[in-house]
Amino acid sequence: MTLAQALFSPRAVALVGASGDAAKTTARPQRYLKKHGYGGKVFPVNPTRDEVLGEKAYRRVSEVPEAVDHAYILIENVEEALEDCGRRGVAVASIFSGGFADAGAQGMQRQGRLVERARALGVRLLGPNSMAVINVTERIALSVNAVLEMDALPGGTTSIVSQSGTMLGTLLSRGAARGLGFDKLVSVGNEADIGVGELVELLAEDPRTRVITLFLETVRDAERLAAAARKAHAAGKAIVAYKLGRSALGEAAARSHTGALAGTDAALDAFFRDCGIVRVDMLETLLEIAPLVASRMPLTLKRAGRVSVVTTTGGGAASVVDRLGMRGVELAAPTLDLTMAASGQDYGSALAKAAQSDCDALVACVGSSAQFHPELAVKPIVQFAGTKPLVACFMPQADRSLALAAGAGIAAFRTPEACADALAAFLSWRAPRVAPSVPPADRPGKEPFSVLSGLGIPVAQWAIADAPAFRHAIAYPVAIKRLEAHKTEKGGVILGVADHAEFVKKAESLAAERLLVQKMESGLAEAIVGYRDDPVVGPLILVGVGGVMTEIYRDYVLRLAPVSEEEAGDMIEQVKGFAAIRGYRNLARGDVRALARAVAALSRLALVEGRPVREAEINPLLVKADGVVAVDALVVRKDAA
Amino acid sequence: MTLAQALFSPRAVALVGASGDAAKTTARPQRYLKKHGYGGKVFPVNPTRDEVLGEKAYRRVSEVPEAVDHAYILIENVEEALEDCGRRGVAVASIFSGGFADAGAQGMQRQGRLVERARALGVRLLGPNSMAVINVTERIALSVNAVLEMDALPGGTTSIVSQSGTMLGTLLSRGAARGLGFDKLVSVGNEADIGVGELVELLAEDPRTRVITLFLETVRDAERLAAAARKAHAAGKAIVAYKLGRSALGEAAARSHTGALAGTDAALDAFFRDCGIVRVDMLETLLEIAPLVASRMPLTLKRAGRVSVVTTTGGGAASVVDRLGMRGVELAAPTLDLTMAASGQDYGSALAKAAQSDCDALVACVGSSAQFHPELAVKPIVQFAGTKPLVACFMPQADRSLALAAGAGIAAFRTPEACADALAAFLSWRAPRVAPSVPPADRPGKEPFSVLSGLGIPVAQWAIADAPAFRHAIAYPVAIKRLEAHKTEKGGVILGVADHAEFVKKAESLAAERLLVQKMESGLAEAIVGYRDDPVVGPLILVGVGGVMTEIYRDYVLRLAPVSEEEAGDMIEQVKGFAAIRGYRNLARGDVRALARAVAALSRLALVEGRPVREAEINPLLVKADGVVAVDALVVRKDAA
Repeated sequence: MTLAQALFSPRAVALVGASGDAAKTTARPQRYLKKHGYGGKVFPVNPTRDEVLGEKAYRRVSEVPEAVDHAYILIENVEEALEDCGRRGVAVASIFSGGFADAGAQGMQRQGRLVERARALGVRLLGPNSMAVINVTERIALSVNAVLEMDALPGGTTSIVSQSGTMLGTLLSRGAARGLGFDKLVSVGNEADIGVGELVELLAEDPRTRVITLFLETVRDAERLAAAARKAHAAGKAIVAYKLGRSALGEAAARSHTGALAGTDAALDAFFRDCGIVRVDMLETLLEIAPLVASRMPLTLKRAGRVSVVTTTGGGAASVVDRLGMRGVELAAPTLDLTMAASGQDYGSALAKAAQSDCDALVACVGSSAQFHPELAVKPIVQFAGTKPLVACFMPQADRSLALAAGAGIAAFRTPEACADALAAFLSWRAPRVAPSVPPADRPGKEPFSVLSGLGIPVAQWAIADAPAFRHAIAYPVAIKRLEAHKTEKGGVILGVADHAEFVKKAESLAAERLLVQKMESGLAEAIVGYRDDPVVGPLILVGVGGVMTEIYRDYVLRLAPVSEEEAGDMIEQVKGFAAIRGYRNLARGDVRALARAVAALSRLALVEGRPVREAEINPLLVKADGVVAVDALVVRKDAA
Repeated sequence: MTLAQALFSPRAVALVGASGDAAKTTARPQRYLKKHGYGGKVFPVNPTRDEVLGEKAYRRVSEVPEAVDHAYILIENVEEALEDCGRRGVAVASIFSGGFADAGAQGMQRQGRLVERARALGVRLLGPNSMAVINVTERIALSVNAVLEMDALPGGTTSIVSQSGTMLGTLLSRGAARGLGFDKLVSVGNEADIGVGELVELLAEDPRTRVITLFLETVRDAERLAAAARKAHAAGKAIVAYKLGRSALGEAAARSHTGALAGTDAALDAFFRDCGIVRVDMLETLLEIAPLVASRMPLTLKRAGRVSVVTTTGGGAASVVDRLGMRGVELAAPTLDLTMAASGQDYGSALAKAAQSDCDALVACVGSSAQFHPELAVKPIVQFAGTKPLVACFMPQADRSLALAAGAGIAAFRTPEACADALAAFLSWRAPRVAPSVPPADRPGKEPFSVLSGLGIPVAQWAIADAPAFRHAIAYPVAIKRLEAHKTEKGGVILGVADHAEFVKKAESLAAERLLVQKMESGLAEAIVGYRDDPVVGPLILVGVGGVMTEIYRDYVLRLAPVSEEEAGDMIEQVKGFAAIRGYRNLARGDVRALARAVAALSRLALVEGRPVREAEINPLLVKADGVVAVDALVVRKDAA
């Protein structure tokens, strides 16, 4: 029995703590399994009853006389139940009970012990704090989720992995009302053992699943998820994620700007992009986008996406287009507006005409006919046998049209906003990135400037000068600094020191014994280049406009490190503030290629054996007409306190 | 007969061009009037028939033997029909036909002639290109909109004015499916005569209408709309607008940065704020927000809005809160999460507890119970008799709960995004602004610097120097400039000229006969302060971070001019980039009050008799530790070519 079989298709399940009171939450799994037609064996486990809801009950899982593939633990004494599962040879135990990582430091320790014991016993865990598994196609409703009160669950080829148990119900019930069906739904709870990454791996291998949908609050196993995403891509399956932005994981550890800027959400965004995961912005999009990405490969466009629009409502199309524009999508041709004029035939030929434009996708917007003549309205859209991706947006209340479209595998949307969200996400969907061939880097030194020099990044000429004579060999004018971060705040930097007499005077004003002396440099623009070994997604590289505006405008681009020079060039292209050195309004052009080289070079810290650097930041890196030069840097090693 | 009566409650209507073929669009008004139970008289007008769909028909409107309050013109020869309406004494003619301002320059001229003739005849016009009027409460379905195929229209206290005819149907059909009803719906078409402003005026006086909902593509009568909005506010009625951002009106005329930056959408946003109109971002919010603003006055908060949340689905509440955070709304207290635990009683007391926090509004988020036990789920929310505004968000498919909430006057939302959109819009809703008492300004001179000096804005000391001697009285170092805009592009500025010898040399390099000489000034920050007499909304004032970054980051705040110093201070507070001079990271503080004085001063151009200035821009205005000084300015007068 494989993990996938025990998890998704168990032949026998034990319900540990199944209640005889049908109104109780703990009675639900047994009721739901029966209600939805589970064909396997169900063993209620209850220490005080011989029978539960008409089924013979057992005192303990270990007393069940037959093999049990999957146990669902609904009681507080999870540890005892786990021991019994081990004795009975149960392959997977899903745990509904909370009081583990969801309940503070003590709960976290309890969870650690539980996982350790499960490994020893050879039992895989789903949860704790999990609403377990629903396998719609095989009629296995092994969950406490109240959505199972529904009489019929809609089958389909989309599977969901959710970090919120209740949201599984939300998605399933909304999909059902729309004719959007599902295959497998999994609530991962605390992910103590089986996590999102492993589930995506299993779903990538699952013959029925075509779209893998993720409802996420964070990512706990980025490396495994990244590998699984590549596996899914290779199998021609799409992954779509909706992620809440509230996680603060790993933020507290951040020390420098890079840390503060590249919050976990931005890091995860870079991560999703890297793995070829489509990220949607709105909850409903998560459902509605499935037909658009099912059996499609990412376009991996190198420019803005372009669409053409056909509509029978000018105002409706405008609300979609307006929203697309806000997401950077362009129109390939003027909207074909058939308001008050369209027969099905007109609509079909307008679609064919629109498809001939240089567009990446088509939008079919429909007005009142979607409400009153759904068959006629949807027919030309379904019949349109173009090779180009197509979405439909129905403006009025049009439940029947939505269901018809869903039945025909057309991505159809209830709102202009979700339509634009899905299309924008689809058009920026990229294949998982192939690791760039970047030369590895040697183990870096301790001093920030030597780290940069070691990576081949030009550094302003510098020296150390000691009291009382403060002798050094740098030509005046010079800058003098303390070797600390965030000089702007501490007042420890003096620029433009003209000669040695002034030097000594200023050194005294700083009350410093040792000073860093630097040749004065100037550039056309200041950049910040940052590296961070993120606790969630691993090494990241950031480039943005330097100086105090970095944090104010949050104008930076983040990618998983390392990046090639070409990729670094793409990043720089997306930083708005660099418009000034890209030739905007006839301003002098900066050496953007040298900047890209520096970004790629710093990103090589990700390749150093053992990854000793936690964070590195050059701020500012001066961008000149010819070359770049680092004038201030910070490096934090993992072995630092 | 008042305009409102003829428009909304006609006792007799003529349908000019009513078709005898029930399948035709032009047959619809007659069908719909009958279907929905119109109690007045209907006179079909058709030159080739004596009878249309069972009613006696007339060749011309002028031949109708009785009084006609309202004619709906469905034929191409609108002009002839209008003459007949004039002869018959028709008070209002709604025009469905297009071919006017919707059809290029010739159509625009045709429209001008039509309006002129209508005025002479004493006939008011709705349209052309209008789907006319639906009065739900009085069962008057005078429209071609196919939404009238619905058997029952939901009545309510929300009225809609729409620049898109088809969107009236979209909103009506979606509202009907949700239990959200309407009173009057008007399609304004080209607004040749009766415009949005006048309709809002009528609805402000309308005893049944409590919420006025606008679907806009542009604003054609800002002044009238502003006055109407104030009238509605005084009558305790809310106005909510959804506006498409695609209008390019007035943009082409813009010349300087201010013009380019303050696009019409930004100008209209400032306008809506000024008139106390709630602007929503999503289409569905336009419907769903109505119960929240009905009979409520704006909170006019001077800080970020704060909410408290009660939920039975942690993931659901998180998706609302996440979205609220993106809109700058804050949490007053931690979310009360009753997942798997809530009875109705628990939920009610949790709401009462949440209301005790220092919050401005409450969010009631409901999971599966909204789907399976709608009465139980909605009851505690309806019973919650708090004085604080409350919204409900139902996470699963929960049609019955939505209808129950609508019936009880609770604002309930289908999606976390629309819920957050409505709440954020509500929390930033302000009462219409009372015009500030700002001293009027004298008629300005022609020279930009004299204009500024005349308004009391400090200007860098300057003089004009002529070839060949270039004599002037400004102390060195100085800056020399040509008197042109956008010097960065043209290379006509030389800074830091040290002495007279260098001056003469540089003057020769500029090949200039006359030069502006300015004392070199420096500041802690550069601001842009702009004034524009917008063709759509009238005088606007803008403040933002100056220099080349102004356009790149679009970091500016726009308000209707004039503004008081206090209002200017609020504007400056909202410019992100000014964080640097507000004491961010211990950077030196700039004189923000002097900046506010300069902004208020420039805004006084709005008070000059005849408003001779079209645009004025100071860029940069240097902000020093003590005071501000303008170093470059541009003034465009309306009488300039």
